[in-house]
Amino acid sequence: MTGPLLYWEDFPVGDTMEMGSHTFTEAEIIAFARQFDPQPFHIDPEAAKNSFFKGLIASGWHTCAIAMRLMVDKYVARSASLGSPGLDNIRWVTPVRAGDTISYRRTTTAARPSESKPDIGLVHSRWEAVNQRGESVMTMEGWGMFRRRPG
Amino acid sequence: MTGPLLYWEDFPVGDTMEMGSHTFTEAEIIAFARQFDPQPFHIDPEAAKNSFFKGLIASGWHTCAIAMRLMVDKYVARSASLGSPGLDNIRWVTPVRAGDTISYRRTTTAARPSESKPDIGLVHSRWEAVNQRGESVMTMEGWGMFRRRPG
Repeated sequence: MTGPLLYWEDFPVGDTMEMGSHTFTEAEIIAFARQFDPQPFHIDPEAAKNSFFKGLIASGWHTCAIAMRLMVDKYVARSASLGSPGLDNIRWVTPVRAGDTISYRRTTTAARPSESKPDIGLVHSRWEAVNQRGESVMTMEGWGMFRRRPG
Repeated sequence: MTGPLLYWEDFPVGDTMEMGSHTFTEAEIIAFARQFDPQPFHIDPEAAKNSFFKGLIASGWHTCAIAMRLMVDKYVARSASLGSPGLDNIRWVTPVRAGDTISYRRTTTAARPSESKPDIGLVHSRWEAVNQRGESVMTMEGWGMFRRRPG
């Protein structure tokens, strides 16, 4: 963690942040899916070849979980974050395949103070994940809660 | 896997299914969050006590990942599933804490044939997760794609 603590005021509307990238290996795709999403096209390369997707693809939950990890590493861990009430419009646009390097970006799309808690503010973000060919693979939106800067 | 393969026709509107339950242990909450959501209130019981949540809570992604696993075990693995284009309205309503037993339920809220692919149908589901006190902890909605019954 470096730099000052980030508060609600540090996520103004229009703010965009590159969150970093992650390369999905075959072993990692299979390990995640064996635990949480053991469908043949996520865990069995041979069965996946004959599937609708014509090859192994990552669970959409895996693509999202890596987004969360990059969020924490990039800004949540050094922010006054209070979690999130939920997410909207998750779209798995293009399959993520073994060897793909996925880059993630966040943009603030709205922000407002909490109506009930004056020391808390809400930030609405849109996240987008893009593969090494520039194809969008996942988008999602949602509100995060952050403490407001004291004083 | 038991019983016949499930097709789009087997998920009519109004169909409700108990998907089973899962008890979230402290070790499991921490293991998931260390990998994908390492915020103090998900990975550090002591820090969590002094947090907004007053104790360790599961990552919302963990609650959803277990939903996915139960879906696969209960019906997806024995269905002609073709995955999902996305999800909407994920709401983490009440924190999931160590020792909580969460029960999951699915209901079909809409269904339609694919416009472009006559052998595929879409099922819109609502999933709800409830803790051992009957409190809703998570809800989400989304479309799933299934092959239609041949012939």
